[in-house]
Amino acid sequence: MDQLKNPSIFIGVQGDGIISFGSGQPDLPPPENVFKILPNFRQFKYGLIQGQPNLRKALAKQYECCSSEDNFVITNGASEAIDLIFRVIGKPGDKLLLHKPYYYSYPTLIEKAGLKVVCTETVKGKIDFDDFDKKVRGCRAVLINSPSNPTGRIQEINTLKKIEKLCSDLDITIISDEVYKDLIYERRNYDLKGPHVVTINSFSKTFCMCGLRVGYLWSNDKEIVQKVIDLKTLSSMNTNILAQEMAYEATKTPRSYVDKQVKIWQERRDAIYEGLLKLGLELWKPEGAFYILPKVKNPRKMVWDLYKKHKVITYLGDWFGAPGSIRLSYALDIDKIEEGLKRIGKYLKEK
Amino acid sequence: MDQLKNPSIFIGVQGDGIISFGSGQPDLPPPENVFKILPNFRQFKYGLIQGQPNLRKALAKQYECCSSEDNFVITNGASEAIDLIFRVIGKPGDKLLLHKPYYYSYPTLIEKAGLKVVCTETVKGKIDFDDFDKKVRGCRAVLINSPSNPTGRIQEINTLKKIEKLCSDLDITIISDEVYKDLIYERRNYDLKGPHVVTINSFSKTFCMCGLRVGYLWSNDKEIVQKVIDLKTLSSMNTNILAQEMAYEATKTPRSYVDKQVKIWQERRDAIYEGLLKLGLELWKPEGAFYILPKVKNPRKMVWDLYKKHKVITYLGDWFGAPGSIRLSYALDIDKIEEGLKRIGKYLKEK
Repeated sequence: MDQLKNPSIFIGVQGDGIISFGSGQPDLPPPENVFKILPNFRQFKYGLIQGQPNLRKALAKQYECCSSEDNFVITNGASEAIDLIFRVIGKPGDKLLLHKPYYYSYPTLIEKAGLKVVCTETVKGKIDFDDFDKKVRGCRAVLINSPSNPTGRIQEINTLKKIEKLCSDLDITIISDEVYKDLIYERRNYDLKGPHVVTINSFSKTFCMCGLRVGYLWSNDKEIVQKVIDLKTLSSMNTNILAQEMAYEATKTPRSYVDKQVKIWQERRDAIYEGLLKLGLELWKPEGAFYILPKVKNPRKMVWDLYKKHKVITYLGDWFGAPGSIRLSYALDIDKIEEGLKRIGKYLKEK
Repeated sequence: MDQLKNPSIFIGVQGDGIISFGSGQPDLPPPENVFKILPNFRQFKYGLIQGQPNLRKALAKQYECCSSEDNFVITNGASEAIDLIFRVIGKPGDKLLLHKPYYYSYPTLIEKAGLKVVCTETVKGKIDFDDFDKKVRGCRAVLINSPSNPTGRIQEINTLKKIEKLCSDLDITIISDEVYKDLIYERRNYDLKGPHVVTINSFSKTFCMCGLRVGYLWSNDKEIVQKVIDLKTLSSMNTNILAQEMAYEATKTPRSYVDKQVKIWQERRDAIYEGLLKLGLELWKPEGAFYILPKVKNPRKMVWDLYKKHKVITYLGDWFGAPGSIRLSYALDIDKIEEGLKRIGKYLKEK
């Protein structure tokens, strides 16, 4: 059980009868046109550190409030975008606000960057604006992640608008991790806006391109964008040029592709939500993304035993600042979800 | 001229009659078999953070002193490997020794990681072991880069062996950036060995795959390897899975491919070395890699005017801790080298 210090032991683990509710990777394939460019690809030279112009131009068109492709930086997945922004946003000791539960990589990367983590608790995964208002003062930046990994909850539009105004008044940068913005069951995403908003997104979830590692950030704050480029020049240089061409092809995908996916995710959401409820677990209903965070007893033992005895991968709530719970990704087909639920039911009876 | 604060303004700049002695990217193509896997590639899921097993296995076979593929981590180019190792090697305030001139990214990344840079001066690019011996004491780690970017000089085998022994006695980690190890004109590379050596290499230079971003690090020090994996799990996740398959194909390339390349590099080295000598510049003869670092008057003005008036890109020596010089990469064909030399001659006459 000592090995359960972070998710790295589970990432990439497949096969051998394992049901993985672990890492959040779609099992559905990317749009076929993503692969069409491969046979004729022969480039090998460095690309621009900031990213290929065709891809940045296509992305700039997707955001009403973005003035130019110069505001974008293409990164090795959203992960690198997040790491880079933490590393350039403040000076050592500056505070950064997170809402709890949070994506597991945030706190370690924030601390690695020399910043301090401040947390605002949420009510059933929803930001409590009064607490937010108190905690955000004196922070250099705040990170909003809606829909959330690990809760699948989305923040209320009303709350987001109040956050926009407050942070603008206080001159606090909002980092908006919107990697699940296309996967919402309730409504379209509300894009956070403002002169100092830094938006992070990815091709991994919307277009099922996790392993190809294309993400990006963009901001109307040109100083921040330049700082990110300067650091990426040293820390990794251009993002893989072939993956960027594949991502460019993905930008041509019609909205119906995403709509079809969301319908599938919603069916799966319903299956796992109902299934876990039937097993007697306490839950919040996911409104987006493909995660669910039930409360359980002895979560560490449960994650370990599910893996070792039942070949079911789940993640420990502690990794997400959510002790007393486990996180399940339901990015797998209904049959596997049902089989996984059966095994979880078996574990719950046996223990 | 104010824009000359770092190389990012030049990276990826091509075309329009420009002769670029700037970034060090081979113009020769990768081995053709690298592209052969593309038409049938259909993977899209996360890979192992540490890197694909087939690639790590193939690499482990190339190093006599490596016991296992578990000692490797595949990264987004050597750049990411360097950044990751700096970020995990010490605690804030620890010192890291560099030999001067150094690759431009090192000092900023070291400081970003909270460490302090200590420098040992070199004599014509060669480490002075007595000075090294003095400066290394109290350091957490030392970085050796042979052949060197920006000098093209290699370190004497005798010196390297003394460094191995001293660092082993003092329990100091050696980070050996060997990305040019296959491109040496004088002899085969001497691989630094030891229980605490961290070796960094890349497919960018040997196999001309710069834009595809595949590098790696390996060490017999399992604790360091695990720390790198743990950080990469958060900061970028797996390296692009398609690029790793291409790199795996590259590992099958016969040695004759590299030998052929080295012959071409040597012809180019001779052309630029003789050419710059004829222009009256003071030089050290490059023994490996594809860089040369002539001493010049007013280097900042020279780099700027060469770019703006003569469409020639060169890099400023200051970026490499070598004031009073400029760095030229000669990774371009002889005709372009000759044309570039002509334009440099014109600038030197006019100024």
